Amino acid sequence: MNLSRAARSLGLPVERLESLMEGILKLSRWPEPRLLRFDKGTSGVEPGTVIFENGDVVHGYPKIRRAMMLGPAIRRNFIDRVAVEEKMNGYNIRAVSVDGDVYALTRGGYICPFSTEIVRERISPDLFEDHPDIVLCGEMVGPENPYVPKDVYPVESIDFYLFDISKKNCRSMMGVHATHALAEEYSIKVVPFFGEFPVERAAEEIFRIIKRLGRSGREGVVIKDPENRTSPLKYTASESNCSDLEFAFRYYNDYAQDFFFSRVVREGFQSVEWNEDEAALRERALRLGESILVPLTDTIRRRMQGEQIMQQVQIRVRSIQTARDFEQHLRRMGTKAIFDIPEQDGDRYVVRILKQVMSTNDKTLAVIEGQPW
Amino acid sequence: MNLSRAARSLGLPVERLESLMEGILKLSRWPEPRLLRFDKGTSGVEPGTVIFENGDVVHGYPKIRRAMMLGPAIRRNFIDRVAVEEKMNGYNIRAVSVDGDVYALTRGGYICPFSTEIVRERISPDLFEDHPDIVLCGEMVGPENPYVPKDVYPVESIDFYLFDISKKNCRSMMGVHATHALAEEYSIKVVPFFGEFPVERAAEEIFRIIKRLGRSGREGVVIKDPENRTSPLKYTASESNCSDLEFAFRYYNDYAQDFFFSRVVREGFQSVEWNEDEAALRERALRLGESILVPLTDTIRRRMQGEQIMQQVQIRVRSIQTARDFEQHLRRMGTKAIFDIPEQDGDRYVVRILKQVMSTNDKTLAVIEGQPW
Repeated sequence: MNLSRAARSLGLPVERLESLMEGILKLSRWPEPRLLRFDKGTSGVEPGTVIFENGDVVHGYPKIRRAMMLGPAIRRNFIDRVAVEEKMNGYNIRAVSVDGDVYALTRGGYICPFSTEIVRERISPDLFEDHPDIVLCGEMVGPENPYVPKDVYPVESIDFYLFDISKKNCRSMMGVHATHALAEEYSIKVVPFFGEFPVERAAEEIFRIIKRLGRSGREGVVIKDPENRTSPLKYTASESNCSDLEFAFRYYNDYAQDFFFSRVVREGFQSVEWNEDEAALRERALRLGESILVPLTDTIRRRMQGEQIMQQVQIRVRSIQTARDFEQHLRRMGTKAIFDIPEQDGDRYVVRILKQVMSTNDKTLAVIEGQPW
Repeated sequence: MNLSRAARSLGLPVERLESLMEGILKLSRWPEPRLLRFDKGTSGVEPGTVIFENGDVVHGYPKIRRAMMLGPAIRRNFIDRVAVEEKMNGYNIRAVSVDGDVYALTRGGYICPFSTEIVRERISPDLFEDHPDIVLCGEMVGPENPYVPKDVYPVESIDFYLFDISKKNCRSMMGVHATHALAEEYSIKVVPFFGEFPVERAAEEIFRIIKRLGRSGREGVVIKDPENRTSPLKYTASESNCSDLEFAFRYYNDYAQDFFFSRVVREGFQSVEWNEDEAALRERALRLGESILVPLTDTIRRRMQGEQIMQQVQIRVRSIQTARDFEQHLRRMGTKAIFDIPEQDGDRYVVRILKQVMSTNDKTLAVIEGQPW
């Protein structure tokens, strides 16, 4: 590993990097190429930052903070104008080229074999030939998504949607305009752009956008400074918060606890900011209550009927080896999953994956059998 | 401190007790008498267990586990019959006599000056003269309750309701019948007794009781083995779960997070066990959603109008010194509270207490001013 080059790029003494290798800086040998990943953030280094053999650094994608009250948050965070893009609901990857081959890095800095197959297919190789140092940041969305399957986008299986670009050894993003220009030049899909608005009018415009997105089951927006002078903010629809809760309470003992509080509090601030009357608050309360109780009672009933509670997803791959590698990838991430035998469908293989939610299964059964809480 | 006597009573080597004094066994000098309290549980010793100067041990009141699915939990936990008592909603204390004076111990093993004044007034001194070793376990309930003010009981200010009796240096309770007999003999209030039922019929009877209690805003029941052969279980009404959530979300950033998950999950199990149809589930979902959003939005609106969010309670005391001592007691428990000037009312003083909920206040203001989450 060319640690001294990486240290220069990160602005850290090389001794500091060496000492981090006993802690948060982890070696990942598989799949090739070998890399070092920051398992947690430190001294201005984002979690998920990766160092390749030659010392090239790919910075972690920074966490986007959430506006709770949209109007005040926009006025406080932005200068004069904002650009509004869709926040698509999938998982975040960074596509980079290493020695001429493209790889997809997960949020945490692992190479994901499945996402790698997808980006190699969907992104023109010319792009990385012309810009070998580019880092494409985007969302993997669609119904055949092993983490967040959603059928609300114009995607048949799964696709990569660009939302930011950066460069190796560079911490910052290149901005909305550069991102959309690159996407157009190389015909890559890019997250929908809803327009640029003056700060005073933005909240009102975004409310309209959010309500429309909510009705079609889409998540929300990311609000950016058009010249990238300040950090972006995100804001989501009530329907999307509730749909997250629905998922969380279906597998309540595995997911709900961490997940829950901030989503519920969001609902309160949105209701106040939208100046909802009693009827609208009632409707929101019912939606919130049902998004908790409907999946929860469904899970309990299924378990009472002897069903194993599992989360079923499916992926579509070009090579069986990709599915095998993805199985190993999930295993190293600590996810227990059962992969069905791949089924051929044209030139692809469809693989159903049953993710286990052991804690929900076991706890529900115990309670059904009379165990107190 | 007569540690060797306490060690014998606890069944622990005296060296072990001495070593615990550097950790979980804490000295409390105020108010007198001095005592050692177990801040946490250890080796079969309940948290809140207290050792007095002479080595007498008053065991902590054991945590009562919660039935999530009532029918199976009763069948699994009990033998043939169960006794059902009301679980009143207040705070738990133990009344004991030390050198002829009665003191009220909190759950954690502190002497509470306010509760001490109440039990000295409400419990006949004959009781402790006849039974100097007795430990009265009960709930302090009523509207002038500094922790859980509730006006659903036939109590004007606050009162002590007995629910169990034990003895110094004795771990176990003396059972339902002994408790009610003692209460009758000395004319002390005792928690309502709903009857004894065979195990097969108990869940059905308790559902009826719970629905009635829920409608009148009361909490639920404790189910005990009549001969005290197995541990008791508790079970609560949906209305009470939701009323707890209402409280928690009014002060959401101070209380809601810990509080929340188990109460919500209870609702799911109760709905399934009661075999609710779509309409009933909808009603429950609305109640749940409103118990979260109504107080939450109310808090946000008040804060936007510049109000400080505080929790207001009031106590009624015979002596001003009791109020001063209680102020010090709250301070040592880490509660920030402002005590109003006592107002005379007959032979009592009414003292309004404003408890601060700093985290909710600060977080809400920050969000209103545009801070992201």
